[in-house]
Amino acid sequence: MGRRVYAIVGGQVEGLVKKETKDGKPFWELGLSDGEGKMTLRAWSDAPAYGNCENLAVGEFIEVRGEFAQQAGFGVDARRWTLGILGEEAREILLAGSPETLKKQEEDYGLIEGSVRGMGDPRLRSLGELFLVDYGVRFRRCAAARGNHHARRGGLVEHVAQMMRGALGMAGAYPLLNKDLLIAGVLFHDAGKLWENAYPADGLMMPFDERGELLGHITIGVELVNTLWRKLLGMEVARGWGEVQPANEDVRLHLLHLVASHHGELQYGSPIVPKTPEAWALHYVDNLDAKLEMMAGGYANSKSLGPRIQERAWPLPGNLVSPLEKWSGEA
Amino acid sequence: MGRRVYAIVGGQVEGLVKKETKDGKPFWELGLSDGEGKMTLRAWSDAPAYGNCENLAVGEFIEVRGEFAQQAGFGVDARRWTLGILGEEAREILLAGSPETLKKQEEDYGLIEGSVRGMGDPRLRSLGELFLVDYGVRFRRCAAARGNHHARRGGLVEHVAQMMRGALGMAGAYPLLNKDLLIAGVLFHDAGKLWENAYPADGLMMPFDERGELLGHITIGVELVNTLWRKLLGMEVARGWGEVQPANEDVRLHLLHLVASHHGELQYGSPIVPKTPEAWALHYVDNLDAKLEMMAGGYANSKSLGPRIQERAWPLPGNLVSPLEKWSGEA
Amino acid sequence: MGRRVYAIVGGQVEGLVKKETKDGKPFWELGLSDGEGKMTLRAWSDAPAYGNCENLAVGEFIEVRGEFAQQAGFGVDARRWTLGILGEEAREILLAGSPETLKKQEEDYGLIEGSVRGMGDPRLRSLGELFLVDYGVRFRRCAAARGNHHARRGGLVEHVAQMMRGALGMAGAYPLLNKDLLIAGVLFHDAGKLWENAYPADGLMMPFDERGELLGHITIGVELVNTLWRKLLGMEVARGWGEVQPANEDVRLHLLHLVASHHGELQYGSPIVPKTPEAWALHYVDNLDAKLEMMAGGYANSKSLGPRIQERAWPLPGNLVSPLEKWSGEA
Amino acid sequence: MGRRVYAIVGGQVEGLVKKETKDGKPFWELGLSDGEGKMTLRAWSDAPAYGNCENLAVGEFIEVRGEFAQQAGFGVDARRWTLGILGEEAREILLAGSPETLKKQEEDYGLIEGSVRGMGDPRLRSLGELFLVDYGVRFRRCAAARGNHHARRGGLVEHVAQMMRGALGMAGAYPLLNKDLLIAGVLFHDAGKLWENAYPADGLMMPFDERGELLGHITIGVELVNTLWRKLLGMEVARGWGEVQPANEDVRLHLLHLVASHHGELQYGSPIVPKTPEAWALHYVDNLDAKLEMMAGGYANSKSLGPRIQERAWPLPGNLVSPLEKWSGEA
Amino acid sequence: MGRRVYAIVGGQVEGLVKKETKDGKPFWELGLSDGEGKMTLRAWSDAPAYGNCENLAVGEFIEVRGEFAQQAGFGVDARRWTLGILGEEAREILLAGSPETLKKQEEDYGLIEGSVRGMGDPRLRSLGELFLVDYGVRFRRCAAARGNHHARRGGLVEHVAQMMRGALGMAGAYPLLNKDLLIAGVLFHDAGKLWENAYPADGLMMPFDERGELLGHITIGVELVNTLWRKLLGMEVARGWGEVQPANEDVRLHLLHLVASHHGELQYGSPIVPKTPEAWALHYVDNLDAKLEMMAGGYANSKSLGPRIQERAWPLPGNLVSPLEKWSGEA
Amino acid sequence: MGRRVYAIVGGQVEGLVKKETKDGKPFWELGLSDGEGKMTLRAWSDAPAYGNCENLAVGEFIEVRGEFAQQAGFGVDARRWTLGILGEEAREILLAGSPETLKKQEEDYGLIEGSVRGMGDPRLRSLGELFLVDYGVRFRRCAAARGNHHARRGGLVEHVAQMMRGALGMAGAYPLLNKDLLIAGVLFHDAGKLWENAYPADGLMMPFDERGELLGHITIGVELVNTLWRKLLGMEVARGWGEVQPANEDVRLHLLHLVASHHGELQYGSPIVPKTPEAWALHYVDNLDAKLEMMAGGYANSKSLGPRIQERAWPLPGNLVSPLEKWSGEA
Repeated sequence: MGRRVYAIVGGQVEGLVKKETKDGKPFWELGLSDGEGKMTLRAWSDAPAYGNCENLAVGEFIEVRGEFAQQAGFGVDARRWTLGILGEEAREILLAGSPETLKKQEEDYGLIEGSVRGMGDPRLRSLGELFLVDYGVRFRRCAAARGNHHARRGGLVEHVAQMMRGALGMAGAYPLLNKDLLIAGVLFHDAGKLWENAYPADGLMMPFDERGELLGHITIGVELVNTLWRKLLGMEVARGWGEVQPANEDVRLHLLHLVASHHGELQYGSPIVPKTPEAWALHYVDNLDAKLEMMAGGYANSKSLGPRIQERAWPLPGNLVSPLEKWSGEA
Repeated sequence: MGRRVYAIVGGQVEGLVKKETKDGKPFWELGLSDGEGKMTLRAWSDAPAYGNCENLAVGEFIEVRGEFAQQAGFGVDARRWTLGILGEEAREILLAGSPETLKKQEEDYGLIEGSVRGMGDPRLRSLGELFLVDYGVRFRRCAAARGNHHARRGGLVEHVAQMMRGALGMAGAYPLLNKDLLIAGVLFHDAGKLWENAYPADGLMMPFDERGELLGHITIGVELVNTLWRKLLGMEVARGWGEVQPANEDVRLHLLHLVASHHGELQYGSPIVPKTPEAWALHYVDNLDAKLEMMAGGYANSKSLGPRIQERAWPLPGNLVSPLEKWSGEA
Repeated sequence: MGRRVYAIVGGQVEGLVKKETKDGKPFWELGLSDGEGKMTLRAWSDAPAYGNCENLAVGEFIEVRGEFAQQAGFGVDARRWTLGILGEEAREILLAGSPETLKKQEEDYGLIEGSVRGMGDPRLRSLGELFLVDYGVRFRRCAAARGNHHARRGGLVEHVAQMMRGALGMAGAYPLLNKDLLIAGVLFHDAGKLWENAYPADGLMMPFDERGELLGHITIGVELVNTLWRKLLGMEVARGWGEVQPANEDVRLHLLHLVASHHGELQYGSPIVPKTPEAWALHYVDNLDAKLEMMAGGYANSKSLGPRIQERAWPLPGNLVSPLEKWSGEA
Repeated sequence: MGRRVYAIVGGQVEGLVKKETKDGKPFWELGLSDGEGKMTLRAWSDAPAYGNCENLAVGEFIEVRGEFAQQAGFGVDARRWTLGILGEEAREILLAGSPETLKKQEEDYGLIEGSVRGMGDPRLRSLGELFLVDYGVRFRRCAAARGNHHARRGGLVEHVAQMMRGALGMAGAYPLLNKDLLIAGVLFHDAGKLWENAYPADGLMMPFDERGELLGHITIGVELVNTLWRKLLGMEVARGWGEVQPANEDVRLHLLHLVASHHGELQYGSPIVPKTPEAWALHYVDNLDAKLEMMAGGYANSKSLGPRIQERAWPLPGNLVSPLEKWSGEA
Repeated sequence: MGRRVYAIVGGQVEGLVKKETKDGKPFWELGLSDGEGKMTLRAWSDAPAYGNCENLAVGEFIEVRGEFAQQAGFGVDARRWTLGILGEEAREILLAGSPETLKKQEEDYGLIEGSVRGMGDPRLRSLGELFLVDYGVRFRRCAAARGNHHARRGGLVEHVAQMMRGALGMAGAYPLLNKDLLIAGVLFHDAGKLWENAYPADGLMMPFDERGELLGHITIGVELVNTLWRKLLGMEVARGWGEVQPANEDVRLHLLHLVASHHGELQYGSPIVPKTPEAWALHYVDNLDAKLEMMAGGYANSKSLGPRIQERAWPLPGNLVSPLEKWSGEA
Repeated sequence: MGRRVYAIVGGQVEGLVKKETKDGKPFWELGLSDGEGKMTLRAWSDAPAYGNCENLAVGEFIEVRGEFAQQAGFGVDARRWTLGILGEEAREILLAGSPETLKKQEEDYGLIEGSVRGMGDPRLRSLGELFLVDYGVRFRRCAAARGNHHARRGGLVEHVAQMMRGALGMAGAYPLLNKDLLIAGVLFHDAGKLWENAYPADGLMMPFDERGELLGHITIGVELVNTLWRKLLGMEVARGWGEVQPANEDVRLHLLHLVASHHGELQYGSPIVPKTPEAWALHYVDNLDAKLEMMAGGYANSKSLGPRIQERAWPLPGNLVSPLEKWSGEA
């Protein structure tokens, strides 16, 4: 099931346990995370990596050399591998991400910055800029989820950027939507995940966070918007906003509503259902992006069940069928 | 609750019953439909309309003159009214719809025609053209639903046109989507409603249809696509399609999948869940358009509960809050 | 169905519409609210109140004299009534509530104050005291809901006080529970209703509030705790809290968790499920008090279906059966 | 857990992968399907079968000789086995099925043919006969499901035959039911599974089918009835049906309704709910047969939890209790 | 909407209230029940019945003469009516039911008796006979429900008899079913309704019963079987049952399981799910009979929506379509 | 993952199977139950325990000596172990439970006895006393569930005792509750589990019971109360109860209602919903105790996900967060 290739893989040690087989043969089980996925490796007592593991600690950055095989539906499997500790420089390169990922996320982040700068309403524009200044670095190393979709370092930037593309498309189709509000909603809707699904500056493992567990990303996102809003109103830029229409407080409440209602139904964790047009638009733009990213993940990784049919990739509701090829020629 | 205005309203008699009040006073209850909404009028024995009602029949076209008041949440109420039978010409004008509606629907139908002509895949383009030729007239007098949203003569054209705008926006944001397939999906997704929610050529009342009751619009839509497809494959235009990629049969199956899965979940009546990217896109584009149209209806008709708050307009899940005004000035 | 009694009822005019019967007879429909319930009165053109209504305005305080009958399941019905405008003094008395209600709510408020003062943890105690100082007046005229249970001026005080009794009972039974935290949770769990279900200082009608609609009382409650917390940390009393255990921030997060999770399940509007022992205790203490208050309301108002059986009082799930009499004698 | 028996088992190779244990010891994993169930066998490098596997290919027909044990809840386990390639003749015998199965399915198919011939309405009778002529061979090698019940070659014939027995029983109890329509509904209700759950003529493995995935068996079944109907109306037998009562088109719609609604609820994949008496009868006759077949499977295979109690066999909702013995003697 | 006919209707006075119209005009509202349905009549002060009502009491048996009209979906409406008190004899006739109903229920009861006598297992047969002896009279005046289906005096006998016909049909189709157990299950499954839905010997109004409210018919049915079982084991007939197979206690438990599980799912009020073949058979036979009776009621009473289409009759899930006519002629 | 400790563990052999690894190496798998939890041990052919297993039988009492490690989320793991058969005396000690457990359950049982004796209503008090006399021994070796919470020998006593503490706390907070009835409800609510979740007198393994499977603990509990009630009414103590208020039969029905409705909703297996105040109080007191016990189990056993965060312990709905430390010092 799949060809084996020789490769070098870098990552951070997420778990390291010495175990025994049922019949008492010892081995090391090593969990490796590279900020996009996870891999479990086993070293037997007669393998060269066995000795290395004795001196390894959770959190160290290493590289693994060996034969790897993609096993559809079961992750990556490694054989005959050795490991080495990464130096400072190699570690920085690893933390920065692959060139392709970096490039993709640079473009996506640029699109977000452009959309923020392009907002007409000075309150929402300034709030967005303040967010990018104060939290941009953290934002860029955050995932959009712990599993399901965009569950990787930088995944939140990709999700937000792609949603902005979708939101602009919808705002074009429905001129009555308040585009500034919708763009701000996209920017902030998952901002609470900067605590719930963040990677540390110097690590590739997503920890669990007590604040995230006790409040959830929607409540944290509301608190974040409020904190930034208070700061903003005390800044120079906010002078003269006292008189404008719509009133500051209305803008704040509508933005908070978008954050609070974006899951669309109480049962999915929104404490309030959508009550404005932008809230519905945000909800569907979010859902469509999540589904299309899940499908992309499913096409890439899910087990084949037959020609052009792949196994259900949870939480999608059914098996996957390959997309219909686009028309290219002429009849 | 609302000012009364003097007006003339035309429509078709949908119901006509002579009743008595609890204490035995007779009156006529007349249901009037104008293809967009319904109105119930009552004529007491001392009113001029009372005598007219004696000679009226269900199905006749009349005009009603009197004082009307919009009662939020309870439809329109009429007082001191008289009625007259419409002549042939007035009836034609009424069937054609108001100039604003006509203009709006002309534009929307034009957009649909343009989108169909713009498809690159000759199978889908020809199928769309064949549908417009064979069923365009019926399509234009069909509603998108019996209630909820776009529940009016021509409402399906408005719904499909607006969804095409949304689909084009989304196809722009997600270049990997097969745009031709998505546009064809929008065109045909509710085509079964040409039987389930059609108005007759010469009437303003939506009847119930045995085929619609026994099969539902999704199954009818699938049958319609199959019927058109068979006809198309027998036409001159289909010569030479035998060799092209993707194969004809694949195109047919993917389009049928879009029709069949567009409700997104089994519990909402789709016999199959979405399994391709275009199926998800179609589902969300459909849902967003329905929700925004429901909100528009709610803002127009739902009862006020306080400043900028209106009562829940079923099936929306909560009360309505007035949209945030767009930014127009400068800080 | 019920004896008619002559009575005098005071309240505020909530609605006032001139209507006509189906056969054109005019009458005034007057909605009266007294902060505990609502009543609809009708004045016919030959009744003395008819003329009074011509000069009345929504918001005015009046008293109604006439014959009243309790109609189980359908509220109160009035006949042969007259009305008078209340003077300043009578209005103040009305706003203050009936002596029994006043006394009950005084006792309940006293119990709340005592519970707050009795907390050992200085952060939670001070936060509770600050809340009572800053918001106590508003708290005392707030309801616990718009319908269902405790839907009356001062109802929230009664609900919170009774929940404190229950929470103390449970803390006695489960010594491991953090009683201070639980009491603070009871105090703040519905504090967002100070905006969602508040009566104004000078009125007996509960308005709808845009903040309440857009955020819901859980999100508002979280924001309120945060606002009070920031204020508290800047106060003299907070000096020296930097070193104590458990840390301030932990206390804040656990209290916010109680507010956020107290509905127990996502589908009931909590953005997060209970994850600590106190969160479960709060949830069940809240639910039990709501159910017992609903039953009390049902026993008082619901229609009889037979000996000791009364009709379901929504949202209770079934009919009501009269409680089993307590044992008083000796066998 | 269960006695081991020496046996010879024939089947088709469904999967064949060379694997390694965690400690690097190689083995072959061979999936074998015999059209009724599946078995997984492992061959270690020191076993005679190991070498055979090197030269084997997926799709080949083999026989396996060895010791087998039924492991309740975990399928069949084989030890010390060898394998041989089947010759043409042995393969034909295997494809034909065991004599008991053959006999059972012959009888069942005969009952179906008899029921079809026994229908009074010439449209339904001819349609059924046409189906058996055109699709009988495919029908006989189809399963009723991929899992759950009747998930074996010929299982659909057994399910349909047994449902016909049930339907005749119910038609006897409810003389008002249109028996012809109900029998036709039984015949066609799962006919879409001829594509969704078919075994190939020359194989014992059920493939996944793109048409089944994109449309589902209900939509395919509707299309099949329509295709046969069109063909039938063009045949000699259909002459003179133009005038009869009930009209052809009514018969077609009612039969399609039975196919479309037989899952009984939208959430189980019916695009329409039952709206006629025969639709309800078909739904319950289908459900009862499926449940009784699941119970039979559960009694045969599910793990024992104690005397006369067996573990839940999904999708049944609870554990199984042994049936109450029938009364045989006299008290 | 419907022709008016002059008729005489007998029944028992279920409610009697003097009311006033909104404009103070007095009238009597009289609820009349005849054990099959209910009717509400109004008598105005200028009507002859007005005076009669003054002297009437709830529970009296009367006859009403006047013009009646069936209003589809809204029950029966009466005009210009007078009333008379029924004498002893007329009252007995009324309590006995109409000749058609009597005859139908006699036949149905005979079928039940025959099925009971026909059981082979002496425990189940004797238990059934004991039930008919001890509770037969009460059984015959019980309804199968308060609404929905068979909600009339004697309705339970009709429901049980028809289910026995269905159960015999199914036992014929599935020879493995324990027919005696299934027949006993049909007999006792709703026996708890002898308390929940009973009409008194001398009345036509179904009261609410505290036992029914507190326990529900399933728990009462279990208690009833246990009570009869204890009595039976103490009777002469039970001698010698100590040794037989299956054991007495097994028979009791399996029968109780049928009573307890017959709603099929916990959410419909069964405290346990079906775990034996007979439990599933009973559940579906019950459900089918209820649905077919609801359909019969719907066809008789539900409002027409168009040719062969009638409005949804709750709790059926959709509109009704007229049954397909049976084939009678020859093609 | 966890330190290994040398220990001696006693228990009863619940399962014993000789297996082979995939590569044919034989080993014994031994399931050991000590009435609180389960452990699986494996003995390889070169281990001393291997030979012992040859002569062991299911049901024997043994002690295991070896190195044990707690593996969070995966139970206990043993290495290098030997086993010995327990003598009569050691076996009695083991059946009696550990001294701490014994002491805890003695206290809890004492509290139950005290609460029963303290009831004022002589019917409920005597019924409780009769239950303790007739079933106390069985009660004391019963669990409160098969999994989830209190799933250990004596667990039901602990659950009932703790619920009595909670019920007394709630009865103090709500003086209107009938405390005697509530206490009796706590005592009997799970009494059906004496059959569903009982351990035998001489064993540590919980068997499955046909009565439990066919009826469920709620129906069995109702039957038990009825059986005790009949016995009680025949006893000397019941003389003179004929006249007292409330009547005997009312007391019985209300107590049965508490047993029947204590799951709170039909979908959780109650055949009837709560309809009295005590039924609601019992339901929430039960639920809170179950949740707090689940949390205690989760804190003890669930896997750590980070500082103060532990993995979801099913059926709790989310991860666990460590409780907030109580305030102990002074600010």
